[in-house]
Amino acid sequence: MIKTDIQIRFADVDMLGHVNNVNLQHYFDLGKTNFFHHIMHGDLVWNGIGLITASTQTSYFNQTRFDDKIYAETECEKIGNKSITLLQRLVDAVSGQVNAESRTVLVAFDFSRQESVVVPDAWREAISRESVSD
Amino acid sequence: MIKTDIQIRFADVDMLGHVNNVNLQHYFDLGKTNFFHHIMHGDLVWNGIGLITASTQTSYFNQTRFDDKIYAETECEKIGNKSITLLQRLVDAVSGQVNAESRTVLVAFDFSRQESVVVPDAWREAISRESVSD
Amino acid sequence: MIKTDIQIRFADVDMLGHVNNVNLQHYFDLGKTNFFHHIMHGDLVWNGIGLITASTQTSYFNQTRFDDKIYAETECEKIGNKSITLLQRLVDAVSGQVNAESRTVLVAFDFSRQESVVVPDAWREAISRESVSD
Amino acid sequence: MIKTDIQIRFADVDMLGHVNNVNLQHYFDLGKTNFFHHIMHGDLVWNGIGLITASTQTSYFNQTRFDDKIYAETECEKIGNKSITLLQRLVDAVSGQVNAESRTVLVAFDFSRQESVVVPDAWREAISRESVSD
Repeated sequence: MIKTDIQIRFADVDMLGHVNNVNLQHYFDLGKTNFFHHIMHGDLVWNGIGLITASTQTSYFNQTRFDDKIYAETECEKIGNKSITLLQRLVDAVSGQVNAESRTVLVAFDFSRQESVVVPDAWREAISRESVSD
Repeated sequence: MIKTDIQIRFADVDMLGHVNNVNLQHYFDLGKTNFFHHIMHGDLVWNGIGLITASTQTSYFNQTRFDDKIYAETECEKIGNKSITLLQRLVDAVSGQVNAESRTVLVAFDFSRQESVVVPDAWREAISRESVSD
Repeated sequence: MIKTDIQIRFADVDMLGHVNNVNLQHYFDLGKTNFFHHIMHGDLVWNGIGLITASTQTSYFNQTRFDDKIYAETECEKIGNKSITLLQRLVDAVSGQVNAESRTVLVAFDFSRQESVVVPDAWREAISRESVSD
Repeated sequence: MIKTDIQIRFADVDMLGHVNNVNLQHYFDLGKTNFFHHIMHGDLVWNGIGLITASTQTSYFNQTRFDDKIYAETECEKIGNKSITLLQRLVDAVSGQVNAESRTVLVAFDFSRQESVVVPDAWREAISRESVSD
């Protein structure tokens, strides 16, 4: 499980006084890029192969405010043939309360050919190692 | 069903050459605010009562590019006691292809009391009229 | 002079109830891409040559609200050897009031070589024609 | 002088492979909110009085990439009767190279009355202390 502290921007907060739910997705994205930075040795596109988002599902439990200290927890829930499913939580660092939870299915994608490919073995192994080391 | 033409911004597109999937959520948001602009007579917070996002679920079928002409289709799928479920599609205006589909559960929310409330009858009726007029 | 209607997004507005000044820059950017879409025949990078921002200077006169109808006015103020200076205004479509004014210096840039180049003659002529046709 | 490490988001980078110049303004904004967090004791609106941006002027010297480690330097250049002028630099933490420099004039603003006011003495003194402690 990878933990990523989030730097909240003033413009992330909308006129309702909480982080706008679209902008909150940037926080999950920070968690994902940090997760894959570890897995893919710092390079988010490797040998022309990267990841493309197939689906996201997010539940919002509590509002996030400008002054909150929050972090994203990111772990791999499942590795399929061509896809990787990540489970993420946005956590209030002070109260431990979960503000939002999100599940994302990412597909291994060859950007030069613009088609999905099998998840490279190197990623599969790196993700397994990451999970064991929790 | 409400149709909303989307104005794509250069900065919406990431280094993979497609609209970033976080930024794509802004397009669904444009569809939602336009939908409720009709329902709530132009005022997104009415008598202190607005809507707060409880969950979103999005499937991405095709990438959206900077030069694409796209629009969002927004319709109400269900009105519960305190919640409204919207179904949305992001459509390529030239090919008619659906690039992404999203379902959002919104909860009627009293922002001064910070608690959920029953969906006002006025909204319930306006949404029914909107659906009938499709 | 090119006029570009702006589609305001809910998330553009911050907790002070006005369009955040960073997000307002997206509106000037919409004006610029629309301007160059005309000049560069729809392709913002042409023969590997595009534009890179060297400096921006913006004055904010009035706040922009979510419900405002606004447009960007964009015109070329000066064409130098390697640079193009644009002058832009963000205008309230109802009152005619100028909410903000911005001057941007853009440099013709070869993105494959990563170096500045002379403004292509085709752009120079197209910008002159655009200015004459005002 | 206040130093603020910047957390770059994948979506900040546009299809030209560098941080989009509009998104770069978010980095200067992070520097500003951090600066005033110190000055205004953590509360960006104090007794109903906050700051509103009157003008910004930015020069871009070098492109910022997704993998760069950068920070914002923020210092007060001048305190006027109703305004505060900040000077900021965006610095590459590895090379020490300045990627962009920005000057912003902010006006003390009473958001309830929607009018500019004299800079509160408490801020004036806190900014002076901050400058001395460099």
